[in-house]
Amino acid sequence: MAGKVFFSVTMSLDGFIAPEPVPVEDVFSPEGRSDPRVQRWMTKWSQLQAWAFPQRFFRENLKLGEGGEEGLDNDIARATHERTGASVMGRRMFDAGELSWPEDAPFHTPVFVVTHERRDPWARPGGTTFHFVDDGIETALGRAREAAGDRDVRIAGGAETILEYVNAGLIDEFSIALSPVLFGSGIRLFEGVDADRVALEQVRSEPSSRVTHLTYAVHPR
Amino acid sequence: MAGKVFFSVTMSLDGFIAPEPVPVEDVFSPEGRSDPRVQRWMTKWSQLQAWAFPQRFFRENLKLGEGGEEGLDNDIARATHERTGASVMGRRMFDAGELSWPEDAPFHTPVFVVTHERRDPWARPGGTTFHFVDDGIETALGRAREAAGDRDVRIAGGAETILEYVNAGLIDEFSIALSPVLFGSGIRLFEGVDADRVALEQVRSEPSSRVTHLTYAVHPR
Repeated sequence: MAGKVFFSVTMSLDGFIAPEPVPVEDVFSPEGRSDPRVQRWMTKWSQLQAWAFPQRFFRENLKLGEGGEEGLDNDIARATHERTGASVMGRRMFDAGELSWPEDAPFHTPVFVVTHERRDPWARPGGTTFHFVDDGIETALGRAREAAGDRDVRIAGGAETILEYVNAGLIDEFSIALSPVLFGSGIRLFEGVDADRVALEQVRSEPSSRVTHLTYAVHPR
Repeated sequence: MAGKVFFSVTMSLDGFIAPEPVPVEDVFSPEGRSDPRVQRWMTKWSQLQAWAFPQRFFRENLKLGEGGEEGLDNDIARATHERTGASVMGRRMFDAGELSWPEDAPFHTPVFVVTHERRDPWARPGGTTFHFVDDGIETALGRAREAAGDRDVRIAGGAETILEYVNAGLIDEFSIALSPVLFGSGIRLFEGVDADRVALEQVRSEPSSRVTHLTYAVHPR
């Protein structure tokens, strides 16, 4: 029995899931960090994700340290991880992650990277293996489904990759942690959505003290 | 003791509070209604507002007929009306409303219309009087505060007028009925928001079966 295909992101109230992009090398270099554009990026990203970083699950999984909050936010973060049998991501997300994830990458499952480049699988300690798929989003999803077994496939990001799957009618369900911040600019989650094709059903809506966790089923129309 | 200044709107998950505009005369004319652009407008508007129209309060207040749903959605709609001692709206919202509201306009309080045109106050049956204010949003708000007494002032719309008040730091609180629809295009609520100036605090988040009712306090920063 196949699992669901879903995505799960944190979104600002005005619809952004990331600030205006800055060169990824700058974010993770000592010189870059004194660049005001990078500092601005970090500030906005930290505000958006403020609910997540204190959670025990994120701290464990990203090797940020012991302890952390427990409660609805933590339960949801952990459940999202545990339901995921394989992930799919775009090339830019992988490139950024390669520079920022701990060596023991935080997936602990197969991850299929949609790219135009051929590359051998890359196994990390802790169970994450990155597979590079150069023949399109449907192939990547097919391989992820197979790898996931009866668990779900997460389309991890970025926004452009998520939207390709939405517009192709391949998403069953998604969750948004709606963060009480306004970005004004940045990368919009639904920029270019084929709105005539996608009908949503509100499945769950769970407020924590920090964000509102929204879950929608996607139906074709 | 002065009340709060707030707005309350229904927003699509991707941030729109109205479809792409069509000429308002067309929406309310028999010929216009056979125009595909107008039909598309009506379809999208109806999807966005699907939670509201069945509610007993809206049916009563817009003279749509007897009966209707009761429950959280209805309670929130009624409470929003009852807290409002005066409203402020932009000229385009007034122009559209003039063509669509029942003669007994649905405010039952003073309404201050921000406009460049001088016009005498216009009293409607049922207690709504429209006052036309031609010297700016602060004057309109000052007059609305005075008229509202200890009740709240609602910035009724449209998006552009709401955003002028947000960016001027004049909003204390706002509510969004987050509707499970994607628009893809239209009029965005927060287009042009001065994000560096506005900090939000999630005050309440109340899911109904149809939408999620979100309330935020606005703090300067």
